[in-house]
This record gives sequence, C-alpha cells and structure tokens, in this order.
Amino acid sequence: MSDAAALDAADPLRPLRERFELPAGVIYLDGNSLGPPPKAVFAELEQAARREWGEGLIRSWNDAGWFALTDTLGDRIGGLIGAGAGQTVVSDSTSINVFKTLHAALALRPGRSAIVAEADSFPTDLYMAEGVVASRPGATLRLATTDAELDALIDGRAAVVLLNHVDYRSGRLRDMAALTRRVHDAGALVIWDLCHSVGALPIALDADDVDFAVGCTYKYLNGGPGAPSFVFAARRHHEDLRQPLSGWWAHAQPFTMESAYRAAPGIRRLLCGTQPILSLRAVTAALDVFDGVDLAAVRAKSLAMTTLFMDLVEPACREFGARIITPRVDSERGSHVSIGFTNGYEVVQALIARGIIGDFRAPDIMRFGFTPLYLRYRDVADAAAALVDILRTGSWREPRFAIRAAVT
Amino acid sequence: MSDAAALDAADPLRPLRERFELPAGVIYLDGNSLGPPPKAVFAELEQAARREWGEGLIRSWNDAGWFALTDTLGDRIGGLIGAGAGQTVVSDSTSINVFKTLHAALALRPGRSAIVAEADSFPTDLYMAEGVVASRPGATLRLATTDAELDALIDGRAAVVLLNHVDYRSGRLRDMAALTRRVHDAGALVIWDLCHSVGALPIALDADDVDFAVGCTYKYLNGGPGAPSFVFAARRHHEDLRQPLSGWWAHAQPFTMESAYRAAPGIRRLLCGTQPILSLRAVTAALDVFDGVDLAAVRAKSLAMTTLFMDLVEPACREFGARIITPRVDSERGSHVSIGFTNGYEVVQALIARGIIGDFRAPDIMRFGFTPLYLRYRDVADAAAALVDILRTGSWREPRFAIRAAVT
Repeated sequence: MSDAAALDAADPLRPLRERFELPAGVIYLDGNSLGPPPKAVFAELEQAARREWGEGLIRSWNDAGWFALTDTLGDRIGGLIGAGAGQTVVSDSTSINVFKTLHAALALRPGRSAIVAEADSFPTDLYMAEGVVASRPGATLRLATTDAELDALIDGRAAVVLLNHVDYRSGRLRDMAALTRRVHDAGALVIWDLCHSVGALPIALDADDVDFAVGCTYKYLNGGPGAPSFVFAARRHHEDLRQPLSGWWAHAQPFTMESAYRAAPGIRRLLCGTQPILSLRAVTAALDVFDGVDLAAVRAKSLAMTTLFMDLVEPACREFGARIITPRVDSERGSHVSIGFTNGYEVVQALIARGIIGDFRAPDIMRFGFTPLYLRYRDVADAAAALVDILRTGSWREPRFAIRAAVT
Repeated sequence: MSDAAALDAADPLRPLRERFELPAGVIYLDGNSLGPPPKAVFAELEQAARREWGEGLIRSWNDAGWFALTDTLGDRIGGLIGAGAGQTVVSDSTSINVFKTLHAALALRPGRSAIVAEADSFPTDLYMAEGVVASRPGATLRLATTDAELDALIDGRAAVVLLNHVDYRSGRLRDMAALTRRVHDAGALVIWDLCHSVGALPIALDADDVDFAVGCTYKYLNGGPGAPSFVFAARRHHEDLRQPLSGWWAHAQPFTMESAYRAAPGIRRLLCGTQPILSLRAVTAALDVFDGVDLAAVRAKSLAMTTLFMDLVEPACREFGARIITPRVDSERGSHVSIGFTNGYEVVQALIARGIIGDFRAPDIMRFGFTPLYLRYRDVADAAAALVDILRTGSWREPRFAIRAAVT
C-alpha cells in the first residue's frame, strides 16, 4: 500500500466524499474558488422550484421559510465560525457586505477616519473601501504592503482594519486572535474577510472578540456559483449599527410599509433587499454536509494534504524555477497551496488537460485548493506527480496551453 | 358561451398559459408580487446545477457563460423595456440598484442636492434614499404626497427624481414620457422604478429619454423568488457614471487583480460583486417565455382583464363599503387592481381559502394582479364572482380568516 493509500484508509473524513457529485476523471483542486455540488443540492433545488415556488407560490415566503433564510442560514454558518446565534446573516455579495461593515465600523468610531487594509487584499475589498472613501468625506484608505507597515498603520487614526484571514494569492493564514487584540489595543475595530477560510478550518469569532466578518458561501462551503455571502457583527455592536444600505429587509417591520426607515433589531439591520431564494436553497443543502463534521478533523486533514503536496512537488519546483509561496509553517497556512512560476498559466492549462483542475491568478500564481471533504490523499499524490511531470518534461510549452480564456 | 369564454376563445395569448406550471384549483392573482415558474425553469436549473456546476465546475464561469449573464440577461430585459443593447445589466437587488443610481445621478448633478421621491413610493426606495442622504453630506430627501407637491418639488434644487412607474399600492400608472420631460426641463435626472410594470406593458426607455431605471425580475417576468434585479443607465451617462458600490465585477479588468479600482467601460460600472448564478438561470428560462410575445397584445389583454374585473366587482364594492382605488382610465392603470376595505386582510384570506390568491398590503389594500401570459378571462370572472360572494355573504367574518401570518 502506498503512503497515500494508507492515509486514505485511515482518514476519518473519507465517507464524506460520497456526499458530493464529482465528475469522473477529474481531480478538483479549485474548491477554494468554487466548491462542487453536494448531491443533496439537486433535490433541494427541485423542492424549492417545483414544490415551493410552483405549488406554494407566494405563500412559500411564509410557509417554506423563505423570508427567514437569511437568518436561519446565518446561524448555521455562525456554527462554523464560532459565532453565537443572532450575529450572522446570509445576504448580498461579499463586496456589498464589505461596504456595509466598513460604514458600520466608521460610524462606531466617529473620531477616526482611516480604513486600514492590506495592499495585496482580495481586490474587491479594496475597491469597496475606495467606494466608501469616495462617498464619505474625511474617510481615508491606508494600505499596508508589509506586516511592519500594517502594524504601523494600526494607530490612533485607524477606525477600522480590514483583514483577509487567508490571503487568496499566497494562502497565508493570519493569526486572528492576535491581530484582533492588536487592533483593539489601538482603539480600532476589525473586519475579517473569511472567504478563503470558512469551512476549511476552525474559526472562533466570539472567542477572538471579532467585531465584524464577511465571507462567501461558494468556496469551501460549496453553496453554488455566486451564492450569497454572509456577514457577522458582534452582538455588542448591534444597538449602534448603522449602514447606508438600509433596505426594507433591514426595517423593523418590513410589511407595515412605512415611508420612513426604522432599523430592525439585531443583526437584521445588516440586511438590505430581497434575496435570491433558489441560490440560498443550494446553500441550505450544502451546509447539511457539515452537520456533525468536526472542523478540527477537517483542519488536520487539510494540513496533512497541503504538506504532502508541498513535500512532493518542492524538489521539482526548486529545479525548474517555480517557488512555493504558501507558508510551510502549519499555523500560517490556509487550505490552498500557491506556487509562483512565470509560465504558471500554461502549467495550469496543462494540468487541466490531464483532468487536474487548479487555477491561476495574475501575475504568475498557480493555486491548488485542498478540500478535506471530498479529496483523497491519492488525489493529492496524483496531482503532485502530474505537476512534477509537466515541469520536468516541459510539456506546458505546447502552444495550446497558452490560449487565454475570456475570463481567467 | 359566456362572455369570458368568448373572450378566451378569441385570446391570441391563450397558448402561452401552457408554458407555465400552475397548481390545479388555483387562480393566481399575485403574479404582480411573485410570478409562477415557467415550465422550462426546472430543466434550466437542472442543466445549471447538475451539468454546468457539477460537471463543468469552475470552468463554467467561462464555458457556460456564467460571467456574462449579468450582461446577456440585461440586454434581453432591455428588449422588453425599450432599451438598446449595452444599457442594462441584471445584478443585486432593486434596493441596491436604487442606491447605485441615486448616487450616480447625484454625482452627475454636482450643483444640486435634492432627491425628490413620492411619499407613497414602494418603501425600500425611500429607505435607500435615506441611506444615501445619511452617508452623503448635503444631500436631502424631499417627499411629495400629491401630484401638485411633486410638481413643485421638481425645481432647481432637484438633482434626481425617483418615480414608481406603477404604484405598488394603488396600481396607478404614471406617464413616463411626460414626467421625464418635466424632470429634464427642470435640469434634473430621473430614475424610474419599473418593478410593477416590467413585463406587463410596453416601456420605451430610449424613446422617452429616461436616464436611469431599476426593476425586478420576479413579478411579471416570473424569474423566481428574490431573483436579482436589473438596472438601466442611458448610454449618454456612461462615461461619467460614478457609484460607490464599485466592486470587482465593475472593474475594467476584474481578473488582473489590481489593487486600485478602474471603472469598467459602459453599463458594467453599475455592477458590483459576484452574482447568484442559479437564480440568474431561472431568470434566463423565464425570459424565454417572452420570446416572440408582443407586449402590445399583453397590454391589451391586461387592460381588458382589469376592466372586466372592476366592472364585475364594482356594484358589490359600492354596496359593502369597499372602494376601487385603481384608476379606471386605461392610460393611468398598471396590471393590478387594488381595492380598499377595512377588513381587506380577512377578505383576502377568505379568497385564498377558495383557491384565489391575491395579496394584502397595509393598511387596508387588497391587490389582485392580472397577468396576461397565464390567466384566462374565465379566471377573472370566477375570481370576481368569489369576491362578490364573500362580500355579500360576509363569510370573511369567520375567525379563521383573521389569523395573521408571520410575514404578510
């Protein structure tokens, strides 16, 4: 028995793979970008579309719990991020939720004007921060390119610090507890972007005293393409929560149809407008997969998989001028491995041609996501062998691998 | 043959009913709130979930055209609202799109500060306007309770006038061409909320010189519960379009992952973040129903149905103290009929108990939507007879009809 086979045989999470629909002949290393569908999603969509929409019609807003989905799904995600009930809702996109929380945080720190963020943040976080600054006189955006700069920017002017829990490009994991303390010591508030960590590792928002968090449901949570995002706000801030996207779902009584806005109590004031129910129902089924799953076991397998992958590819990387960017120290690594290589785009295409799907991020980063719910150690070993072979043989030089897709 | 049967026999739109999934024994008069599913939606969802998501995985963002859906669906809706290609996108909720267009309009009229709106507007439009005002120093919101007040408020201070094409409560249809001219004559810009008109009657945004429009896809367009909204901006404004929800989908090159925002060309700068693809695919199938459908014929049947209904119920309404609020003049009426009645809630429940689904809006409005694609004249006659019977017999007084749902 190979090492990988032995690891698979001993894997406590092995049965979970059966809950997913995975195409034959594919090793899917892009669950950090779009998770595959849990099998239960199809029946859930059928139920939502044919039974609830088709038969229940308008009545399903009440009878099928559609109107409550923002809250019920929020609490279920809360269970995966260490957030007690009533502090998380699912609504809108991550970009929109970044906007809401930045405004809410600025309003909570009226004497301060600066938004601090990482220059290599996932870009939309920065674009939304720009939008906040452009529409809120006095607000400024200060970007840190290094940890030292970040530390220096967390000063008395900082109202809010927007941080990526796992860097989408490098796969680096930040220390949430320590950085949250650092931000609080400076009198500022923190927003954690959990897009690249939620569902991949244990998160403890309440225990770490986090103020706000946002994240997406379509990566490690497998909620479907573009499924709505979630947003968390610590209960201590609810009373004073103000954000300008004050739509009717964030009203104290949406159906009294008052002409003046009155903020809903609690976390619902981070809602805005009507939400896409069919997409939310795919999220519902996707979250079922996590029922009874120990995120500590997920984390242990994730670290074992990323370590195995790096161990297997590192010699070839060194030989052919590719560099592993992702930290080797377990505590500093999320659940994907990034490798810089000038012709990374072509290598990723050569891998896809072999049924191994990773992705590429400009300018030169190959990303490989390792998702413990449906990947086997033998997939990791096979993918590593293919990457090593492509580097060794130079087969990525075939002209067909250089053809760029419209959207990459 | 009854009058209604004769009308049905002569109805050129009659075959379209076959394209919808409608529960047996139900007359559905709430398509003005949530349209029923076109039959093709189920296969489209299956295709999107099982084939594209399940087999195509991340590749479907390109290969299945997911990334382009905001634009392709936008142009298809453009065809239903008289908007030339490249001026409409489908994205986010109506509330969010009101926010974007209000900001964009204010930025286009820098010397002016007032947002003018109707006091009896659909509430979320006002709540979003409040959010704009709260976060944009100097901006003001001025509400008109009458037409005369509205006219008076469209003055030299008005930057933008936000109008409902069809009033959600009364069913009144405004004169888009005349009001747009009036707003332009005052040097202001107009945003039309088309939620209660799109798909129900011909709209001519380009011909009427409209600046901005927003609308929803789940009422007369039948796109599914909470399906994303559309937003239109006239091409002449694209170059100077600025709005603070500047997410990565509104970036000139989303996948170059730049840290600074650069606005996309054209209408895409009204996008923001990643959109819910499954819900968008339901919209795709729903729009197929409109292929080859003449909106003038839809409008003619809608007016005939609302007229028939009002004719049939008016004597009983007069006798029992209910009042028809919706204008009787065709040119001032949308596609639903509203009747004010102190115990309207109970009457609507009594109708639902008979399989006739309308809805109720606080404080005392019964609403009945007449949707030409799937309703027959005999449904109109049957619904009218039931309403008359409930008023005459007073059967709405049964205690069970007074029980309020959690969300109404």
